[in-house]
Amino acid sequence: MGINYFKREARDYQFLLNEHFKMEDVLKYDAFADFAIDDLGMIIDEALKVGREVLGPANQDGDREGAVYHQDGSVTLPKSFHDAFAVMRENGWVSYANKPDFGGQGLPQGVAALVTEIFFGANMAFSMYTGFCSAAGRVIENYGTDEDKELFCTQLYSGEATGTMCLTEPDAGSDVGAARTKAVKDTSSDDPRIYFIEGVKRFISCGDHDMTENVIHLVLARIEGDPEGTKGLSLFIVPKIWVNPDGSLGEPNDVFTAGIEHKMGVHGSSTCTLNFGENGKCRGIILGEPRTGMPKMFQMMNEARLGCGMQALGLAASAYDSARIYAKERVQSAPFIDRRGKAVPIIQHEDVRRMLMNGKSVTEAVRALLFKIGYLTDIAENDPDEEKARHAEHLADLLLPIAKSYASDKGFEVIRDSIQAMGGVGYCSEFPVEQYARDMKIISIWEGTNYIQALDLIGRKMQLEGGKVFQGCLQSIFDFTAAHKDDADFAVDLKTLFKATQSVGDVAMRFMGYFGDGRAQLIPLAATRFQDSLAECILAQLMLEQGMVAREKLKTVDPKSADGIFYTGKVASAKYFCRNILPSVFGRYSALTIEDDTAITIPEECF
Amino acid sequence: MGINYFKREARDYQFLLNEHFKMEDVLKYDAFADFAIDDLGMIIDEALKVGREVLGPANQDGDREGAVYHQDGSVTLPKSFHDAFAVMRENGWVSYANKPDFGGQGLPQGVAALVTEIFFGANMAFSMYTGFCSAAGRVIENYGTDEDKELFCTQLYSGEATGTMCLTEPDAGSDVGAARTKAVKDTSSDDPRIYFIEGVKRFISCGDHDMTENVIHLVLARIEGDPEGTKGLSLFIVPKIWVNPDGSLGEPNDVFTAGIEHKMGVHGSSTCTLNFGENGKCRGIILGEPRTGMPKMFQMMNEARLGCGMQALGLAASAYDSARIYAKERVQSAPFIDRRGKAVPIIQHEDVRRMLMNGKSVTEAVRALLFKIGYLTDIAENDPDEEKARHAEHLADLLLPIAKSYASDKGFEVIRDSIQAMGGVGYCSEFPVEQYARDMKIISIWEGTNYIQALDLIGRKMQLEGGKVFQGCLQSIFDFTAAHKDDADFAVDLKTLFKATQSVGDVAMRFMGYFGDGRAQLIPLAATRFQDSLAECILAQLMLEQGMVAREKLKTVDPKSADGIFYTGKVASAKYFCRNILPSVFGRYSALTIEDDTAITIPEECF
Repeated sequence: MGINYFKREARDYQFLLNEHFKMEDVLKYDAFADFAIDDLGMIIDEALKVGREVLGPANQDGDREGAVYHQDGSVTLPKSFHDAFAVMRENGWVSYANKPDFGGQGLPQGVAALVTEIFFGANMAFSMYTGFCSAAGRVIENYGTDEDKELFCTQLYSGEATGTMCLTEPDAGSDVGAARTKAVKDTSSDDPRIYFIEGVKRFISCGDHDMTENVIHLVLARIEGDPEGTKGLSLFIVPKIWVNPDGSLGEPNDVFTAGIEHKMGVHGSSTCTLNFGENGKCRGIILGEPRTGMPKMFQMMNEARLGCGMQALGLAASAYDSARIYAKERVQSAPFIDRRGKAVPIIQHEDVRRMLMNGKSVTEAVRALLFKIGYLTDIAENDPDEEKARHAEHLADLLLPIAKSYASDKGFEVIRDSIQAMGGVGYCSEFPVEQYARDMKIISIWEGTNYIQALDLIGRKMQLEGGKVFQGCLQSIFDFTAAHKDDADFAVDLKTLFKATQSVGDVAMRFMGYFGDGRAQLIPLAATRFQDSLAECILAQLMLEQGMVAREKLKTVDPKSADGIFYTGKVASAKYFCRNILPSVFGRYSALTIEDDTAITIPEECF
Repeated sequence: MGINYFKREARDYQFLLNEHFKMEDVLKYDAFADFAIDDLGMIIDEALKVGREVLGPANQDGDREGAVYHQDGSVTLPKSFHDAFAVMRENGWVSYANKPDFGGQGLPQGVAALVTEIFFGANMAFSMYTGFCSAAGRVIENYGTDEDKELFCTQLYSGEATGTMCLTEPDAGSDVGAARTKAVKDTSSDDPRIYFIEGVKRFISCGDHDMTENVIHLVLARIEGDPEGTKGLSLFIVPKIWVNPDGSLGEPNDVFTAGIEHKMGVHGSSTCTLNFGENGKCRGIILGEPRTGMPKMFQMMNEARLGCGMQALGLAASAYDSARIYAKERVQSAPFIDRRGKAVPIIQHEDVRRMLMNGKSVTEAVRALLFKIGYLTDIAENDPDEEKARHAEHLADLLLPIAKSYASDKGFEVIRDSIQAMGGVGYCSEFPVEQYARDMKIISIWEGTNYIQALDLIGRKMQLEGGKVFQGCLQSIFDFTAAHKDDADFAVDLKTLFKATQSVGDVAMRFMGYFGDGRAQLIPLAATRFQDSLAECILAQLMLEQGMVAREKLKTVDPKSADGIFYTGKVASAKYFCRNILPSVFGRYSALTIEDDTAITIPEECF
């Protein structure tokens, strides 16, 4: 067993549940009738305990032993993963985000998001296996027949089997529509939903392992004769071992694991190349209608993108935790303002504080955003007021690409800063932060690269309701700054936010112009930077909301009490974010308004 | 043997040597009488060949097999490292930067810097061993007796032994003066320069290995009774195996390797904990006078800091090379402006181009800066005009912390972008970029963290000659923008540079105010950001100088010729840097002028 470093505190989660957001508005929905507000805090406490006692202790094993591929095509995982998986199954932690009909815990999505953050922050590689139980199960729950649900959701939600998401092929990565895996109807079967599947899928996370006997693959394939591109793709349930109608396991299903990738991180998660139907005997069950695979995968991917945000936040927050704890203990060098004085804990050095404040404010801000998306999703899925539900859905849709990309890119910087704050030991595997960095780096790439997120933001999400959702989002920031214009504590922050949001609006206006004046390529060239700037405006508002709540609460408690310290820290996070992170928007704005096209016009041979 | 990915092109080096800088002004010095201008280009070509044929092929072995510690205290390296070391020795590549008196090649420092970049870019872990031969040897050459030089420099420069730099102890990292290793005169010896050494040094790079029989340690220790802090430290030559006056090896010298670190990267470089004198038998030879150890180590560290810049640039440039080559080959997705078109090489996607342009322009800019520091060092060490020599020395001193920190921080971003541009394969160890990221991360930490560089910049370097060196540096940028104010091609760039430099000057003025008004802590809090902004102004000028040279040359060649393509790319790099990277200065300026002290005033318990 490796060393367990997971030490997340509960207070910021409680703040979201009890102070920042109105959870009672969500708990009133029938779907959550079983939950009282106090239950949610207890669930978070339990999840933290699982993080500390079950997942955290297995984190270094996953990295060091990793998933091991054997010549017979099998993949084995560390013993501590097996042990942890058994505990997770027993305690219902495999499907906390799923509806109860087939065994899920049915948590509100906001709360589920926090649990996901905690689990991934404790052990990312492991949590991918349980995450896929939930994610694959939900697709089957949404689109399968009653029999499919009974057979597969039950198994996935109980952790009898894990799931996968088989999109990528050697020549179809970001371009999913280029997939060549094919499906041919099994004419010998009585069931018209059975197809033979043949093709190679690559980079399949958790594609094979020995923690469960079966793996339920969701495979995108093209039925012979169907059109090229994403429109011709259908989705199939392809169990590693065939599942009989009574739920018992049948014959192996001609799915061969050809190898696993050696990667920078998440070593405990097997990244497989899977050969389907090498011997012509791989059978799959079509999920829903032919040629509707892509929208179904999109739904799964949307959830996975929120999941990416939580994964990234989990790792960033764990890195920040390591750095803040270490910085209080490690004594080194005299302070800047007393160079001949005694050595002090490094948390007293200004640049270490700067890096810790980056970690603190960014993780709190991203946590608020991800929780908000979950909160909006609960409204969208449950509110009887259709207008309200639709508004919540669209706002969540708009925020999603931002959440995925900002959490993974800025979270990577938080980990980098944590390594730096810790100095030489941060680089050594004795401490966990270098592993967090290695585990993290994939999140900006998978489930649609962060550039694909940016294109999704600009091309789809900003166009929702003819642009009204996006405009409404900016307007709500302006309304917020106007409503608080006399707030002396946050005056500079509100002014900065107003100006930053104006600049984001200006860039969006310029985008419209570029379409008309033949400079359309400036849009994708600016997309990533635009996405970051919009993210920072949205996050700054969330932090100011939190800061204002905390400031009021601070008047009612002893500042030296645990609550007093938390609120003081929260006000500081809000100010720090607005005064140190948000101004990056102006740097990007300076660049984007030059409207430089050098990167486009430079001939390819110059690279 | 792993896969060799090293593929650097020679053209940018030639541009520095033949077109941007006036190498003939350096070659006229006696020290370089043996070199003609054409020799320098040939040396670069040879170094590139060594990178491709000797170092590159061993790079993955170093990462995968790594340095291995054995229970008897020995450390072994991969066979391919041994083979490469033999070739490097045979061909005189161990001491290319050292003076010829004891076997060095005596290259001008600018050229040596380029060679270092190439070697580290091909194989960082390996090149550390040869790098320490050169660096340790130079300290002995500068401060040793004739006998020391004869004995140790000869061995180090020929690669018979490697060197180390033993500063860090478990409780003395950034705070070198806290060192507890002690020295006691060996009263039984006839030689008054012999001391017994006792103490533990940690994080000693290349501290032990089996490529050479001996390792020559340079050890900072405190002679019993000497004062605390850096002022009481002396420097000792401590061979792993005692060297007899005739150069033959004597007894082992009671230096025990207690272990090596497991690290994020540079696995092939052993990072040792060394126990000196566990049995009271470790002897060292004092180098120069007692209590002068720190200035000597500073000299070595200064060189090491320029070395850090080259290491970082080498890795960043190799990552950029991997990404640009892959991006031309990998076909994926239709272009943004023709969504229904055919899939294209990913280099045609705008965001991939943006990332590649980051890599191209940043590596070229940093290369120019590092070469300039080497060029200035040659003037400083050789020019008969004292005023000119001193000016060159001080300017190089000012640029050094910037070079180390910007190359390592921004270089890390270049590698991150290279991984991102390559997508999933960038995360896999099949390609080299994830290793570059892991190898790189230590460079922002060692040889003085980048924060220590920033404090050195502000506290020492900006104070040189009462601030005149720094002011002169800014003024030379203003002079440059004024001299070219009618240059239509770079009008926006010159304007941006002028404004950016003004903002840097303004922050420096504010610093002076903070000292007076009780807000001194704002200075270290801003230091890292200030350092980055100053770096970007200096780099922008270098890029514009290059861009202007290239523009003129472009008028004289066929734009489709190899030279034409290079010059076109150089003009693009200059514009891209000024229009996309330099504007970050304005984001930082927006933040710094808020003068936020939240990170300082927040109570420690809030973290």
